[in-house]
Amino acid sequence: MAHIDLKNDYPGIRGLMAFRPETAKALNELAEVLLRSDSSLSRGERELIATFVSGKNDCYFCEQVHGGLAQHYLECNTEFIDAVSADFISSAVSGKMKALLWIASSVQKGGNHVTSEQVDTAKSVGATDVEIHDTVLIAAAFCMFNRYVDGLATWAPPERSYYINRAKQRAEEGYANYDVSK
Amino acid sequence: MAHIDLKNDYPGIRGLMAFRPETAKALNELAEVLLRSDSSLSRGERELIATFVSGKNDCYFCEQVHGGLAQHYLECNTEFIDAVSADFISSAVSGKMKALLWIASSVQKGGNHVTSEQVDTAKSVGATDVEIHDTVLIAAAFCMFNRYVDGLATWAPPERSYYINRAKQRAEEGYANYDVSK
Repeated sequence: MAHIDLKNDYPGIRGLMAFRPETAKALNELAEVLLRSDSSLSRGERELIATFVSGKNDCYFCEQVHGGLAQHYLECNTEFIDAVSADFISSAVSGKMKALLWIASSVQKGGNHVTSEQVDTAKSVGATDVEIHDTVLIAAAFCMFNRYVDGLATWAPPERSYYINRAKQRAEEGYANYDVSK
Repeated sequence: MAHIDLKNDYPGIRGLMAFRPETAKALNELAEVLLRSDSSLSRGERELIATFVSGKNDCYFCEQVHGGLAQHYLECNTEFIDAVSADFISSAVSGKMKALLWIASSVQKGGNHVTSEQVDTAKSVGATDVEIHDTVLIAAAFCMFNRYVDGLATWAPPERSYYINRAKQRAEEGYANYDVSK
């Protein structure tokens, strides 16, 4: 049960957004620009960074929602998503994604954990300044979303199929003007 | 020197916002609704939560910017702000603020650190569900802002007077439509 009376039964961040639409609007606009706007990082790559950070923060709801979306966009299977979360260095992602996930893993610990070596490595395998910027901000944003969802003890459907089955619809709808009742 | 070429010399998040206005807009709208919109928590109390969390995250720029704003709104001195950061339980803030800062201290560690005991304590001293919600989201949001500012290694003016002297102007301007060049 959530720590506060949300006056609705929606899971995860949906319950919080229904409770407080004023902050929901700003949060959804941030998610839209970070994860869906035009970028040289694909939507799947950005959702994969979000999934990876959510896993490090032990936020089951966010990890599954964004893992489902990453799987949808990347047209991969669940095993691929899990392999990245378990050990991105040995996973089948590109060298650039490995370098960006390495940066994201430090952001998750704290901003001061990011090193020049990590950034230089990312640049050496072709990451642009905007891509590095966006990786840091996506990782940082999920340190917010994850704390928001778990800090208020929202509930999460346990079945992974719930999230995977919703991903196509969620990808079509986007984040801006998201109707949490759907 | 920042990890990426920001093509400007503004300190802290201002440099990042000038570099990437698309994400700046969403971030400033979030700050506006969280820290300045109508609320039973005063602007000073909300800036104090932001300051406290930024201190825990070792983000000097954010701690000083929001500490300066908290000092401005609360019409207190720097010693009061520092006393809250050092030991909020012994500080002169209200019982409700102590309970909310206790929740914020757990959010800073991770969402799953927030306990029912902390939330029950906050309710017992008069905190409403919306106030508890907003405290969790403000604390979570500064776990994002702090990681963003430090994860990209932005610079920060060392003198505390710089931030204190700017607070009145920043309070008048607000966050929405913030002109980072000022």
